[in-house]
Amino acid sequence: MFELGIVKRNITRASSVAADGLGPFGASTVHEAQGRVGLMKTYLRPIYSGARISGTAVTVLMHPGDNWMLHVVAEQIQPGDIVVAALTSENTDGFFGDLLATSFMARGARGLVIDGGCRDVKDLTEMGFPVWSRAISSKGTIKATLGSVNIPVVCAGAYVTPGDVIVADDDGVVVVPAAAAPAVLEAAAKREALEADKRAKLAAGVLGLDMYNMREPLAKAGLRYVD
Amino acid sequence: MFELGIVKRNITRASSVAADGLGPFGASTVHEAQGRVGLMKTYLRPIYSGARISGTAVTVLMHPGDNWMLHVVAEQIQPGDIVVAALTSENTDGFFGDLLATSFMARGARGLVIDGGCRDVKDLTEMGFPVWSRAISSKGTIKATLGSVNIPVVCAGAYVTPGDVIVADDDGVVVVPAAAAPAVLEAAAKREALEADKRAKLAAGVLGLDMYNMREPLAKAGLRYVD
Amino acid sequence: MFELGIVKRNITRASSVAADGLGPFGASTVHEAQGRVGLMKTYLRPIYSGARISGTAVTVLMHPGDNWMLHVVAEQIQPGDIVVAALTSENTDGFFGDLLATSFMARGARGLVIDGGCRDVKDLTEMGFPVWSRAISSKGTIKATLGSVNIPVVCAGAYVTPGDVIVADDDGVVVVPAAAAPAVLEAAAKREALEADKRAKLAAGVLGLDMYNMREPLAKAGLRYVD
Amino acid sequence: MFELGIVKRNITRASSVAADGLGPFGASTVHEAQGRVGLMKTYLRPIYSGARISGTAVTVLMHPGDNWMLHVVAEQIQPGDIVVAALTSENTDGFFGDLLATSFMARGARGLVIDGGCRDVKDLTEMGFPVWSRAISSKGTIKATLGSVNIPVVCAGAYVTPGDVIVADDDGVVVVPAAAAPAVLEAAAKREALEADKRAKLAAGVLGLDMYNMREPLAKAGLRYVD
Amino acid sequence: MFELGIVKRNITRASSVAADGLGPFGASTVHEAQGRVGLMKTYLRPIYSGARISGTAVTVLMHPGDNWMLHVVAEQIQPGDIVVAALTSENTDGFFGDLLATSFMARGARGLVIDGGCRDVKDLTEMGFPVWSRAISSKGTIKATLGSVNIPVVCAGAYVTPGDVIVADDDGVVVVPAAAAPAVLEAAAKREALEADKRAKLAAGVLGLDMYNMREPLAKAGLRYVD
Amino acid sequence: MFELGIVKRNITRASSVAADGLGPFGASTVHEAQGRVGLMKTYLRPIYSGARISGTAVTVLMHPGDNWMLHVVAEQIQPGDIVVAALTSENTDGFFGDLLATSFMARGARGLVIDGGCRDVKDLTEMGFPVWSRAISSKGTIKATLGSVNIPVVCAGAYVTPGDVIVADDDGVVVVPAAAAPAVLEAAAKREALEADKRAKLAAGVLGLDMYNMREPLAKAGLRYVD
Repeated sequence: MFELGIVKRNITRASSVAADGLGPFGASTVHEAQGRVGLMKTYLRPIYSGARISGTAVTVLMHPGDNWMLHVVAEQIQPGDIVVAALTSENTDGFFGDLLATSFMARGARGLVIDGGCRDVKDLTEMGFPVWSRAISSKGTIKATLGSVNIPVVCAGAYVTPGDVIVADDDGVVVVPAAAAPAVLEAAAKREALEADKRAKLAAGVLGLDMYNMREPLAKAGLRYVD
Repeated sequence: MFELGIVKRNITRASSVAADGLGPFGASTVHEAQGRVGLMKTYLRPIYSGARISGTAVTVLMHPGDNWMLHVVAEQIQPGDIVVAALTSENTDGFFGDLLATSFMARGARGLVIDGGCRDVKDLTEMGFPVWSRAISSKGTIKATLGSVNIPVVCAGAYVTPGDVIVADDDGVVVVPAAAAPAVLEAAAKREALEADKRAKLAAGVLGLDMYNMREPLAKAGLRYVD
Repeated sequence: MFELGIVKRNITRASSVAADGLGPFGASTVHEAQGRVGLMKTYLRPIYSGARISGTAVTVLMHPGDNWMLHVVAEQIQPGDIVVAALTSENTDGFFGDLLATSFMARGARGLVIDGGCRDVKDLTEMGFPVWSRAISSKGTIKATLGSVNIPVVCAGAYVTPGDVIVADDDGVVVVPAAAAPAVLEAAAKREALEADKRAKLAAGVLGLDMYNMREPLAKAGLRYVD
Repeated sequence: MFELGIVKRNITRASSVAADGLGPFGASTVHEAQGRVGLMKTYLRPIYSGARISGTAVTVLMHPGDNWMLHVVAEQIQPGDIVVAALTSENTDGFFGDLLATSFMARGARGLVIDGGCRDVKDLTEMGFPVWSRAISSKGTIKATLGSVNIPVVCAGAYVTPGDVIVADDDGVVVVPAAAAPAVLEAAAKREALEADKRAKLAAGVLGLDMYNMREPLAKAGLRYVD
Repeated sequence: MFELGIVKRNITRASSVAADGLGPFGASTVHEAQGRVGLMKTYLRPIYSGARISGTAVTVLMHPGDNWMLHVVAEQIQPGDIVVAALTSENTDGFFGDLLATSFMARGARGLVIDGGCRDVKDLTEMGFPVWSRAISSKGTIKATLGSVNIPVVCAGAYVTPGDVIVADDDGVVVVPAAAAPAVLEAAAKREALEADKRAKLAAGVLGLDMYNMREPLAKAGLRYVD
Repeated sequence: MFELGIVKRNITRASSVAADGLGPFGASTVHEAQGRVGLMKTYLRPIYSGARISGTAVTVLMHPGDNWMLHVVAEQIQPGDIVVAALTSENTDGFFGDLLATSFMARGARGLVIDGGCRDVKDLTEMGFPVWSRAISSKGTIKATLGSVNIPVVCAGAYVTPGDVIVADDDGVVVVPAAAAPAVLEAAAKREALEADKRAKLAAGVLGLDMYNMREPLAKAGLRYVD
């Protein structure tokens, strides 16, 4: 399943309706909508603030200090994809910079999620190519060992199958399995609709204690008010 | 002292003169002014740059992954308060987002300091509700276990009594005991007055070595200049 | 070599042509140009985004929680220098703030690289004095123990000799030995010239796989394409 | 795939020949034998030294601070199993202690691998029940939220399917997919046979440079010997 | 409250019955018995395995890299005390070694809990003087700045008042307020009595699911068994 | 200075009298004796307790995930040497195991200090070959890129020149420059002689406050005793 030295060319991407539609809800709403699973670890941070993207995952597995496979994955990118790069062990080297970003953009990629380091962040920011990484590092990488492309990977603690939907913004990165994406989209839309009403009430001064009917269960659990 | 399941309704807040007056000096000056105690750990970071607030602490203690008590503390907020949220063990989940922020703002809260995670940072930034947290995470929390509100807590390594003054900015978060706040305010003002003069001298090229008369003690300590 | 209690007044600075010329290439290109050595650890981060500087190192070694030597090093600063501050053990206190920055700027310093904490980041940002630090902390420091100035130091994992060139930007901090600086400058210029052409090709859709002739070595290494 | 609230009763365990046979080779040899994939992160450490176990995985997914599912998984344990416990977000609470260990042992479990905290380590050591955990903590956990049992999980960065073989010792924890286990066992045996011969040569003073014929490729790569 | 430069000579120690009686229950049972509060952070680890102590806290607050106050606190030690050492900011230097341990033992101290580093661990192990520390470091400390002795401190995230009971073993360090100690002792004894019975049942193969009547609440919460 | 692709064959080792003589004093005493410099970072830990060694450094610089140079350095080992392995960026892979240890022992090496990971710790413990490493990991490494042997390196924050003396025990790892080693040996011996007398006094109940005449300077610094 995690064999090295493989490039899978044909993958089944999530429906573009779901892949495109999930983005505007943002990572947190989508994470809630799919039952609080599929979140990458919080050490992944965007290299600049404000980006919010969604798209279909093409995956790549690399060894520490070796980015050869990023050139291999470039060829597999289709417009609307997000590259998800996992490593076989922890490493913060700068696997990705402005040249690869130029190539990925030319292929239609919307961003990169990498469980390693990134460099040229000033250039990437100016190009508007968003990256979520675990570090920023000038340290270059070699091209000596094979990894794999478009196999299932574990990236920053989350399991990603090629074709899954990735939603990423300032709150983090969420993976939605391709098959679940349409249902999650629907759930996210419902959730957001409900929130608008709640937001208005809370802004008007209504307390969550009352709006969510929490006073009784809190009392039952034994909460005591003292002066 | 750290009993769980308690909500204290009546707390003695620091004088609003001190609570409001300390903010403009910023965390670093206030920390110096009170003798270099009361600083929270540096892993707490603001979710956006540039905010500088002060106010009176209402406190809440929660379990990892459970934000029920944030709804309870909301009712205890008075205008000018800052919520200080401590946890019984380390956790980075997203305890707080835009709905709770809407509620806290409606109650008059000036900000949140939380020894856990925060989410919806894009919304919070747009709303102008500042949060100092140890992580940003989409991971939601449950509402199942009791903590306490307005008991003394340890938040990010600092001891906070309800009603204490909190000063927070890009440099970090400082706690000033309510009773000490007026004296600290005076000391901060004095300190800043002295600094203006020093700043001018240093800008003019005077060395700290001379301005602070350090050459003699340095020589006494054995400092040697070599070529 | 790492003796404490010494201030070396006469150091040999790298040629200003190299020291000034390396900056615009940025840390990552310079790091590549000198063979991927001399990079400080990635935990050093700029206190604000967008600064890119180069200059000659004046060094200082301090004990945890004691910034006395920063006043001593101030006198040794010449226009175009960057102060590199190392510690004898790990510490995140706020060794440096707006007063010292005022003094350093008056002496002509271009920035500070410190393997410890920094404070007054709002002021430093407004002053435009860039600092790369491992933490931001309001915690002040004492003036009680001797360190040294302008001795070789290890700062954030990199060995720095006084007079070496420092290049720092959003990607990190790189040290170029003074003697190597002219050659590295030349190599950096060559590297960048080559990259312009590559960038254009990649933007036009050419794959790195073809541009770098990687298909054959990948096949030789055993890469298999599957459907 | 990662649905919460599910207990799968029937899982396909790896052949007991492979599950039992892999243990004596140890985690490092097994990891090599299966192509350097499937290693859990190095922050997982055994609570005492010297244990070396292998067995079939029964998996459990829990929320931070909540060990309810450990009681549910107990019923699914069969002799020869190792429990693999994953969390939905990072947490170091003490999910597991001597009472649960007593129950797990009674069911025939050989050990526990948990991406969270463990307690009662003195008792567990005396009982001889080995645990690999990310922390040791007295902090108890609640029983309030549903997770799942015997679904695929990501534990300490590794993907585990129920029934996979787990090999754990002082070097760490490795996952071998059930289907691959027989082949990996064979490869591990071959590898170890080869190593005995190498070990004898190296002990006799033969250099790896010669035994592995590295001198030529090193020279080709450009290695230069200087005096 | 956290004033520096103070030595409080007269403190009210917890009853020796409680202080001595809590130890044998161990940190985890005591932590449960007092309602899951008062646990120090898990980064504190014993320098050797197997020690289990309890006693009354004498406290000391120090600056990073400065152990002067450990000599001051030595005079305040009474037989049965445990020294609790807190720092004003994070530091891993070796504040404590075999000479101070000799002095502390001569005064009747049972151990040291320090939110900093320790050295001479080989000697301390041979002497049988247990230390819980956040690091082991050869780095010595200076004697230049005042802290305080026997004031309330925050040590490794826990609030400690002089005279409180400290319970420490391989599971960690727990603080029991002096006033609560007798009740906690009683609760711990009850808890342990109950556990003996449970342990026997679990060893006989009874499941926690049945012993704790969890099947119904699990079903109510929605747990589904599938094949 | 940090050029890659170089093997220096002739290095000047510290006098064996100093290299052998420093070990028994241990890392902490030696660190004090040479003025509190030269200590490696505290994240380096011995793979088993109780080892205390000293010897002359042969150095090696490697890339993350690549241990080719460990085979190259093996040939440069002379009896009494300790191998010091540095990396060009942070990595925890298992660079070293029982086969290399067999080879190093056959060459007369006394131990290994590595700013990376180690594996086969059970075997290494049984062989009695001590290693100080930053991690334990089953992850193997490749043999693809050149580093250097016997050039100056920065290992775990300390600068090491080939031929320097390394002292390592449970307290950590200290580097003594070859030229300074005889003087440091003398200073360590003096220091230890003085400590025996102090130890006896402290054991007899004399306070450090009196033995070191601290009461007056403490009072001068403003220490106040209160009841």
